[in-house]
Amino acid sequence: MPSLFTRIINGEIPCYKIAEDADFFAFLDINPNSKGHTLCIPKKEVDKIFDLEEETFIGLMAFSRKVAKAIEAAIPCNRVGMTVIGLEVPHVHVHLIPLHTMANATFQYKETLSEDEFNSIAEQIRSKMK
Amino acid sequence: MPSLFTRIINGEIPCYKIAEDADFFAFLDINPNSKGHTLCIPKKEVDKIFDLEEETFIGLMAFSRKVAKAIEAAIPCNRVGMTVIGLEVPHVHVHLIPLHTMANATFQYKETLSEDEFNSIAEQIRSKMK
Repeated sequence: MPSLFTRIINGEIPCYKIAEDADFFAFLDINPNSKGHTLCIPKKEVDKIFDLEEETFIGLMAFSRKVAKAIEAAIPCNRVGMTVIGLEVPHVHVHLIPLHTMANATFQYKETLSEDEFNSIAEQIRSKMK
Repeated sequence: MPSLFTRIINGEIPCYKIAEDADFFAFLDINPNSKGHTLCIPKKEVDKIFDLEEETFIGLMAFSRKVAKAIEAAIPCNRVGMTVIGLEVPHVHVHLIPLHTMANATFQYKETLSEDEFNSIAEQIRSKMK
């Protein structure tokens, strides 16, 4: 059965999309640690990040860096943090999280945003993609 | 003034070293989230990871992947997670953390290890480096 994220890539589940290329896809986390929290994923469905072939891993990192720089340009924050855990959805995903304090990095405090807020944040980040 | 991590690279502060090449350095975190928690850093002292030039960023990621695969081979765990926060030491550092449960990823629970345990863990990981 395709993963939740493969269904998002395929458009079967809606998302607030940030960026896409031939191999990778980025969209807002709908249970964000902070405003602008984004997930970057490979289209290839692999569970564990270090099981990706080196080329795909490096490609995902380069893609994530571009998205992170757009987030940093769009969302006021101390910096964008990057976290890969993967204990829940078995499809590699890189969390890019605007950090204000350490609490934004612990996954224990969540922001509640309206659909309008998600759309506005996504538009702001997309406008900074190069 | 050189960062804490530059002083570790220079040998002014001791560490449990895992790996080193011309541009990058890896050593055990002495306040680990779990056994085998390792830091990978660029020798170049830069505060924020997404301020690294693309080549250095990609080099750091490729180096971290090699170290992570050695940790996965040496330390029984569900998988190795990767986190970059950087709100404390202003020198880019990639946390590679053996994950058993989500608690290992939150930076709120720490393992206390003896010097012998640190040395043994470092030796086990080093023995798996390719």
